[in-house]
Amino acid sequence: MPANEMRKDYLLDRWVVIATKRKRRPTDFVKETEEKRAGACPFCPGNEHMTPPAVLVYLPLNGGIKRDRDQNAFRHKNWLIRCVPNLYPAFTPPEKEENDELKEGVFSAQALGHHEILIESPFHEEHPSVARISQLIHVINAYLDRLKDLSTKPYVKYVSIFRNHGLDAGASLSHAHSQIISTPLIPRIVEEELKASRNFWTENENCAFCDIMGKEADGPRFIWENKAFFVFAPWASVHPFEFWIFPKKHQSTLLNMGHKGTEALAETLRICFGGLKSLLNDPSYNFGFHTAPTGEPQGYYHWHLEVYPRLAIWAGFEKSTGMFINVMSPEDAATSLKESVQAEEKQYFRLK
Amino acid sequence: MPANEMRKDYLLDRWVVIATKRKRRPTDFVKETEEKRAGACPFCPGNEHMTPPAVLVYLPLNGGIKRDRDQNAFRHKNWLIRCVPNLYPAFTPPEKEENDELKEGVFSAQALGHHEILIESPFHEEHPSVARISQLIHVINAYLDRLKDLSTKPYVKYVSIFRNHGLDAGASLSHAHSQIISTPLIPRIVEEELKASRNFWTENENCAFCDIMGKEADGPRFIWENKAFFVFAPWASVHPFEFWIFPKKHQSTLLNMGHKGTEALAETLRICFGGLKSLLNDPSYNFGFHTAPTGEPQGYYHWHLEVYPRLAIWAGFEKSTGMFINVMSPEDAATSLKESVQAEEKQYFRLK
Repeated sequence: MPANEMRKDYLLDRWVVIATKRKRRPTDFVKETEEKRAGACPFCPGNEHMTPPAVLVYLPLNGGIKRDRDQNAFRHKNWLIRCVPNLYPAFTPPEKEENDELKEGVFSAQALGHHEILIESPFHEEHPSVARISQLIHVINAYLDRLKDLSTKPYVKYVSIFRNHGLDAGASLSHAHSQIISTPLIPRIVEEELKASRNFWTENENCAFCDIMGKEADGPRFIWENKAFFVFAPWASVHPFEFWIFPKKHQSTLLNMGHKGTEALAETLRICFGGLKSLLNDPSYNFGFHTAPTGEPQGYYHWHLEVYPRLAIWAGFEKSTGMFINVMSPEDAATSLKESVQAEEKQYFRLK
Repeated sequence: MPANEMRKDYLLDRWVVIATKRKRRPTDFVKETEEKRAGACPFCPGNEHMTPPAVLVYLPLNGGIKRDRDQNAFRHKNWLIRCVPNLYPAFTPPEKEENDELKEGVFSAQALGHHEILIESPFHEEHPSVARISQLIHVINAYLDRLKDLSTKPYVKYVSIFRNHGLDAGASLSHAHSQIISTPLIPRIVEEELKASRNFWTENENCAFCDIMGKEADGPRFIWENKAFFVFAPWASVHPFEFWIFPKKHQSTLLNMGHKGTEALAETLRICFGGLKSLLNDPSYNFGFHTAPTGEPQGYYHWHLEVYPRLAIWAGFEKSTGMFINVMSPEDAATSLKESVQAEEKQYFRLK
């Protein structure tokens, strides 16, 4: 199966994957009036045959877990975590693994890479806002396992780990899941962050992101923190109620997180998404990890997680200019989120 | 009333207007299950008191039209076109007009400018897909009148004219209307196009956009043309069924269009949006004009109109990386659109 084509705009530094593996007709795009999905959830236990074979499965074993990556892994039924290739992938591996370097033209390239679904729980509704911490630790460990594995591929330049929650955020299935895409280029936004943070490092002998944390600590945009993570509404929030999660220690990639970091991040996700859910009645949202690209070390970078609630629509102005209008100030958003997240934290520790 | 604040991201060259003139509470963002709008349409004739006073009105006069821009303009009832300030503007004029230059910091600036609604017709449903050509000519003339007027303001660096059609495209009111926003900075996407087309002009002694038209003529992405306009699906379309409309003559701004150009553009809009509507059951879409900024002439630029049907959702991958996935190839989109637009053209000339 040949790879999809990636195309660059005539003038802009903007790449698009033309993902036409599934043949589409115009009628496929006509809006349906009724909920289109009924029938069995392909991510629920018992329906494993509805997805491609898993590339990673976590299984319970003697009170711990067993990571299974062999070819038979997909047959297991009693899984805790399953990671499967997307049925209609935007990016696909090269046909021969030796065909290692991206053949990139000025306006066209092969969309070489991977596109995977990480099924976060056997329970359909175990989203981060309500999940058991033990399960969220499995989810984060699975992110790290896939990131580590995909980073070794010679044609992979970046691994994007993201989550779409709710119909308005583009989640076509409601079973708790994330997605992992590896790309053969460093994406534009990451490239721009890398460049700016490299310059900052050179000029100030300090990390740009550590500097941001210092400035936002105890300020009007601060939301929450635990020992290892710092949560705040960014100064120039593009989305209403946008918030960012930074590791307090300077770490360029998620792979530096360590066991304690994993536990602290699981707690952070549980409490912050619980707070978001109760504040805004389970809003649709996207989140995306930003991490240093694979390959040579970028010590000046600082990985983080950006969360974008989907409460407004980017319209003609945003789409045609690249400027944004946000009708909620980050300070007001932080005030509400702080209160809601603190209430969630209290309730969480009471239950615990 | 002080201006909104514009903020730049810590690291990215990304500006956001924090538009908090209307105080928002978290509950304002909770998704309502029922259609929230009922009651009178503020853009329909008879409801002129529901909008701020008009800045421009077209009135019928002796078989022609009269442009009224005086302070009493908003009182007229028998209008053909009305342009009114947005009730909750993202950009506002400076309090004293003499206060002419933008006070821009590195991370913050005042959102000085204008934010207007152009009511395209007294008829609620007279959208471009079904409009009378005579009415679309008024719409385009009103775009040009406002563009000319706003371009003279010393604090205006760019004028964005755009249209949101349908709920999925962010149109909160269904009465046919466009929006006009003037900004105190040249927006990022326009800046990037300007830079690339200036470089192309220097290197090739030719216009980058004229060159694109030459390459797309009669090719697999060509959709339609008349004497003055050329319509095609761009090579790296970001949206399914995206199409661009270019004037065939090299013109840097809409203001160069001329009377014949206005008529030809009205025809182009009527036929292309008619074709889009019949192909995809009146899909939501955004369109945005791209034009040379106000101020000094940019002869190397070539104005155009970009149309983005809203048939897919930008999710976590797009939002966190700035790379895009389009599940419809521009070639297949152009094939369908070409057929539908040609059918629309036949029907249109038969009726005419």
